[in-house]
Amino acid sequence: MASDADLQKIAERTVGFSGADLASLMNEAALLSARYNKTEIAQNELILASERVMMGPERQSHIHTPKERELVAYHEAGHAVVASLLPNADPVHKVSIIARGHAGGYTLKLPLEDRKLTTKSEYIDDLAMSMAGGEAERIYLGGDYTTGPSGDIQQSTQLARAMVTRWGMSDIIGPVAIDTAETGLFVGMRPESDTTLSRVDAEIRILLLQAQQTARKTLSENRVLLDAIVAKLLEVETLEREEFNTLLREHGIVPKEKTEQVTQSFFA
Amino acid sequence: MASDADLQKIAERTVGFSGADLASLMNEAALLSARYNKTEIAQNELILASERVMMGPERQSHIHTPKERELVAYHEAGHAVVASLLPNADPVHKVSIIARGHAGGYTLKLPLEDRKLTTKSEYIDDLAMSMAGGEAERIYLGGDYTTGPSGDIQQSTQLARAMVTRWGMSDIIGPVAIDTAETGLFVGMRPESDTTLSRVDAEIRILLLQAQQTARKTLSENRVLLDAIVAKLLEVETLEREEFNTLLREHGIVPKEKTEQVTQSFFA
Amino acid sequence: MASDADLQKIAERTVGFSGADLASLMNEAALLSARYNKTEIAQNELILASERVMMGPERQSHIHTPKERELVAYHEAGHAVVASLLPNADPVHKVSIIARGHAGGYTLKLPLEDRKLTTKSEYIDDLAMSMAGGEAERIYLGGDYTTGPSGDIQQSTQLARAMVTRWGMSDIIGPVAIDTAETGLFVGMRPESDTTLSRVDAEIRILLLQAQQTARKTLSENRVLLDAIVAKLLEVETLEREEFNTLLREHGIVPKEKTEQVTQSFFA
Amino acid sequence: MASDADLQKIAERTVGFSGADLASLMNEAALLSARYNKTEIAQNELILASERVMMGPERQSHIHTPKERELVAYHEAGHAVVASLLPNADPVHKVSIIARGHAGGYTLKLPLEDRKLTTKSEYIDDLAMSMAGGEAERIYLGGDYTTGPSGDIQQSTQLARAMVTRWGMSDIIGPVAIDTAETGLFVGMRPESDTTLSRVDAEIRILLLQAQQTARKTLSENRVLLDAIVAKLLEVETLEREEFNTLLREHGIVPKEKTEQVTQSFFA
Amino acid sequence: MASDADLQKIAERTVGFSGADLASLMNEAALLSARYNKTEIAQNELILASERVMMGPERQSHIHTPKERELVAYHEAGHAVVASLLPNADPVHKVSIIARGHAGGYTLKLPLEDRKLTTKSEYIDDLAMSMAGGEAERIYLGGDYTTGPSGDIQQSTQLARAMVTRWGMSDIIGPVAIDTAETGLFVGMRPESDTTLSRVDAEIRILLLQAQQTARKTLSENRVLLDAIVAKLLEVETLEREEFNTLLREHGIVPKEKTEQVTQSFFA
Amino acid sequence: MASDADLQKIAERTVGFSGADLASLMNEAALLSARYNKTEIAQNELILASERVMMGPERQSHIHTPKERELVAYHEAGHAVVASLLPNADPVHKVSIIARGHAGGYTLKLPLEDRKLTTKSEYIDDLAMSMAGGEAERIYLGGDYTTGPSGDIQQSTQLARAMVTRWGMSDIIGPVAIDTAETGLFVGMRPESDTTLSRVDAEIRILLLQAQQTARKTLSENRVLLDAIVAKLLEVETLEREEFNTLLREHGIVPKEKTEQVTQSFFA
Repeated sequence: MASDADLQKIAERTVGFSGADLASLMNEAALLSARYNKTEIAQNELILASERVMMGPERQSHIHTPKERELVAYHEAGHAVVASLLPNADPVHKVSIIARGHAGGYTLKLPLEDRKLTTKSEYIDDLAMSMAGGEAERIYLGGDYTTGPSGDIQQSTQLARAMVTRWGMSDIIGPVAIDTAETGLFVGMRPESDTTLSRVDAEIRILLLQAQQTARKTLSENRVLLDAIVAKLLEVETLEREEFNTLLREHGIVPKEKTEQVTQSFFA
Repeated sequence: MASDADLQKIAERTVGFSGADLASLMNEAALLSARYNKTEIAQNELILASERVMMGPERQSHIHTPKERELVAYHEAGHAVVASLLPNADPVHKVSIIARGHAGGYTLKLPLEDRKLTTKSEYIDDLAMSMAGGEAERIYLGGDYTTGPSGDIQQSTQLARAMVTRWGMSDIIGPVAIDTAETGLFVGMRPESDTTLSRVDAEIRILLLQAQQTARKTLSENRVLLDAIVAKLLEVETLEREEFNTLLREHGIVPKEKTEQVTQSFFA
Repeated sequence: MASDADLQKIAERTVGFSGADLASLMNEAALLSARYNKTEIAQNELILASERVMMGPERQSHIHTPKERELVAYHEAGHAVVASLLPNADPVHKVSIIARGHAGGYTLKLPLEDRKLTTKSEYIDDLAMSMAGGEAERIYLGGDYTTGPSGDIQQSTQLARAMVTRWGMSDIIGPVAIDTAETGLFVGMRPESDTTLSRVDAEIRILLLQAQQTARKTLSENRVLLDAIVAKLLEVETLEREEFNTLLREHGIVPKEKTEQVTQSFFA
Repeated sequence: MASDADLQKIAERTVGFSGADLASLMNEAALLSARYNKTEIAQNELILASERVMMGPERQSHIHTPKERELVAYHEAGHAVVASLLPNADPVHKVSIIARGHAGGYTLKLPLEDRKLTTKSEYIDDLAMSMAGGEAERIYLGGDYTTGPSGDIQQSTQLARAMVTRWGMSDIIGPVAIDTAETGLFVGMRPESDTTLSRVDAEIRILLLQAQQTARKTLSENRVLLDAIVAKLLEVETLEREEFNTLLREHGIVPKEKTEQVTQSFFA
Repeated sequence: MASDADLQKIAERTVGFSGADLASLMNEAALLSARYNKTEIAQNELILASERVMMGPERQSHIHTPKERELVAYHEAGHAVVASLLPNADPVHKVSIIARGHAGGYTLKLPLEDRKLTTKSEYIDDLAMSMAGGEAERIYLGGDYTTGPSGDIQQSTQLARAMVTRWGMSDIIGPVAIDTAETGLFVGMRPESDTTLSRVDAEIRILLLQAQQTARKTLSENRVLLDAIVAKLLEVETLEREEFNTLLREHGIVPKEKTEQVTQSFFA
Repeated sequence: MASDADLQKIAERTVGFSGADLASLMNEAALLSARYNKTEIAQNELILASERVMMGPERQSHIHTPKERELVAYHEAGHAVVASLLPNADPVHKVSIIARGHAGGYTLKLPLEDRKLTTKSEYIDDLAMSMAGGEAERIYLGGDYTTGPSGDIQQSTQLARAMVTRWGMSDIIGPVAIDTAETGLFVGMRPESDTTLSRVDAEIRILLLQAQQTARKTLSENRVLLDAIVAKLLEVETLEREEFNTLLREHGIVPKEKTEQVTQSFFA
């Protein structure tokens, strides 16, 4: 184990891993280290191994049609552009159009600090970044939709629901907990009225529609940058943080500061 | 196994097959190859065998009444005409009024490319093609309905529901996931309000009514073609791709380009 | 087994029979053949045996009160008159006021052709024929109701529900599948809104009220025929097809053409 | 077994009896016969034994307070008066204020004929007869209610519900089956909308309120007869059919004709 | 066992006792008799023992704060005053501010007669007596509420629900049984519409608000008596029937007549 | 065991502890006593040990970012300021920004007396104190929200629900018990109408919005005190009662009187 290996950090990003998953992670890390002729397992290999276990191996064998390859590039570039431009979103760590597991491509985010608490502003920008994949597709397709953003839609709905029903972030609903675990114990009984659920639905929908609107506006105002990232992705397939930041700087955008923790979102 | 046998392709079109189904497929393919005095099992026999396992054997022994035979011909010709004329629908691979399994006839579609992502425009045309079976029946019957399209109605409703609740393809509902799997875990609890479900129902109904309208308009504007296909089907029972395309060309329609993957819909 | 025995036909009319039911059917057919001194089991005995297994043995021992005997006669004659006069209803095969199983009497229908597909027009007339039992009772009772039509009401409601929710036969609901099997798997969750269910209920109710209205009108316009059939039934208890058709012709009505398949409805 | 013993009749009135109940019935009948020094078990003893098994033994040891004794007398006399005066209600077989099982008293009805079919008119009068127990109590109490009629209310609601939802006896609901058994199989799913259930509730309520109104009107118009029956019951505790009919005739009312089958209702 | 021991009476007031509870009761009665140097177990000891098993032993060790002691005194005095003044309420048998089991104090009622039937008027006064505990607290606290009446609220809601849904005591709902046991067997299905449940809720709420209003009015009009009982309770902790009646007489109120059966309510 | 050890008190504050929890508590208390070179376990060590078992050990190793440390300080200071200023809230026993278990910091309350009964006024101030954590965060963040108050929101919602549905503390709902345990036994059946639940939701929401409003107003009117407590917490991390009271006095506020029982709320 190399001296920079930080198992605490790895533990934090592998919440939910089973024992078998962790064994698999260590195995992958050892294989990667061996492949690079290293005698120790360093933090970098641990991170790569955790990504592999989380998202599955890269699938170079899967051949996209040209149109689908461009769609995936727009989707991922959309995530990356919005993440780079909204003030409270985490910066981009890596963008790729290499298929991985069920995902056609992926965009890794890099949080600005190792925070425990997230603010509503940060979630608002997270939602917009999530919506940006589908919105970039629609720019490419002239307004048409695909099934591509279904994973983004599901995760964003869950986040928006938690904002409204657990964290008191909707002024319409107020600081009220709704559908909490202990009430779910009464099978088939829901303590809230349909009126309340209707207001919750409306608030979730507004959060997501506003996020979609923000993503659409940001992308259409930065179409040149979007097209440049797409072009580069179609050429090199994967952009590491520094390559991506160079592209940003070429378009007059100052990249955000580096932090340590890495989370990911990817196109499914 | 012949050199053109592509098990990956066969695997993709036999999603959901049990081990017994796959054993049955290989057995059927071997029997077909033997019947044609071939020493190898080619891709064509694998495909025919997969159709047989999926839809059951052809049932020449089942004798339709003359009226039912014409109804089935109109139903399948309806699917085929709309598939050929709508820009985003897959072209027709085969049309038949030979009963098969529970189906009175069937129409096989041929996707234009081996795509992973489907667009809303493609689904919209799929829905219209699906509705075209029943609409062609109604043209034949002077407006009356039969139980024939019940399978088409069920599949179309499921597709329309996914468009509205999973893929964000309804602007009224927005990019919101509804009735997702993880919420179904709370037995008897549904997170959405009745107001939201009412809007979802309305959107599904509009998608299907518009598809029905498109099918009806396309068929009534191409009645000569419809009748010609029906006449041919009553004569020869099955139209392969080339025979069908010849009919299209005779009526001034340019058939769509060929692709590889074959999916099917059939009249139940 | 006689040369006219057609086991395929028998199989079609014994859908839902258990193995024990089928054993019972063959046993009854053998007994009937023996009773008639036949050395082979002919199609006629197989049909009589299937009726006996379906509806139970005739129950001559059950003595109706005179008033109930007349009620049963009006009920069955009502079914028979409406079946004979509506253009899309199947003609009458047999009418009887002999109690059988739980039924006080029964009317057997004879479909005009061995069809697989049923049209909305045919179902509309089926519903009216079903409602005619109760409506004839009400003519006899001067408007009062009995519990007699409860079986007719339950079967008609199921048919009307399928027309509206599975076969797209309601223009208000459109070609939408409602309450499908796969959604029922989520215990306690119903995908449709109450608004949609309310529209479904309204459509079912309209179908049944219109059928009741059609039955009432047909019976009151043919009161002389109705009374004649009742009088004959009270005299001879069972009218075979030819006796019944003779009555129709005496009242200036041309009986419908014969077909092969026999289905039945009976007064419970 | 005496020659008049009719086990078929006994079977019909002991629907729902377990094997142990029937053994108990025969035992009671033998004991009763022995008590009367009979060497055979006659039909009368079988009936008395079945009543005893159904309603429990008479409970002379239970001492009502004087007020409660009068309440019970009014309750049973109420049932008896309305049964005697409404044209479609069954006549009274026996009235008693002797406590039996959980019942404070009981009134046995005697149907006019051994009918299989019941009409709406008969059920309407049955409901009024059922409501008459509580209404007679309210006359005695000057408008106050007791818990006495809870059994009558529950049985009447079930009957009214069946009239509305199974037998098509409500013109508002029409000939529609609601909440049928096969739909109940989908746990937690109810096919009908809340609008329909609301109409059903309204129809049930109207039937019961009208029955209550009929009972109240009949009793207040025959207060002299009601008081006379109460006075007699307080004196002799049990009125057999002939004693009861004598009272009716003394008040100028012609008792209904006798029939065979006996059913019962009693005050709980 | 003393000659006045009436096990029938004891049985009636120990409905719901398990075998272990009854063993415990006899044991307690024997201990009490021994403590009083009696050689026989008399009815008085049996009653005291049943109270002890029902409500738990007295808890002298629990020290109320002075404010809480006064609150409990007002709560129990509230029950006692309203029970004494409303014409249909049972008179008071004992009032105490000694904590017992989970209860901070208790008031034992004494029914006027050994009745089987309860009238609406009696339940109306019972509800007011139940509400009087909380209302007396609010007089003491200047309008504030405590958690003290939660047991009274729960029991009163159950009683009011039964009045409305089982005993026909609401003219708005009528003589209709709602939510009966047999309908509950269909898991998750409720036969009544939301409109009906809404009316039931409204009727329950009106009964309880009127009871609260009656309690408040009775207490404020008899504030001198209330304060006198509180003062006496704070002094002697427990008032037996005769001491309590003396207080009533001192304030010009004639105590109700004695009866035998004792039921209890207590402050939890 | 020291003479001041009061196991009754410890028992009262460890309601819900398992046997293992209690063993753990005694073990911790012995270790603490040993660490302080005491030969007996005193009440103080028992209390510290119970806190440790309840909230987990202090987690000095967890390093907040500076921004998060300030957020936690504002959150806890918010609880402490409102607890000190509202007349019916319990005074502060200890405030800390040392992470403990899942909590980022904690504030221990000290009830003014060992009461059994809580009034609505006290709960109203409890709700405001609970809301004060999030409101202080929003002052620090300029109006933004974090996920920090989710535990406060859940507990407050439960308390507000009990006030409305169990303790009759809402004049709109009245003294009615809603969703009681015994009705939950009917799986999937809820006795109350949606109208009633809608009113309950509205009442809960009003209680929580008013509490939030009170917290916000109290904090903005005492911003100097809030900032002073935050500054001190950032310096010393934990404020014991006397240190905290000194701060209050420096800002002209008289601390509330001491009592014995300690309960706690903490930031999760």
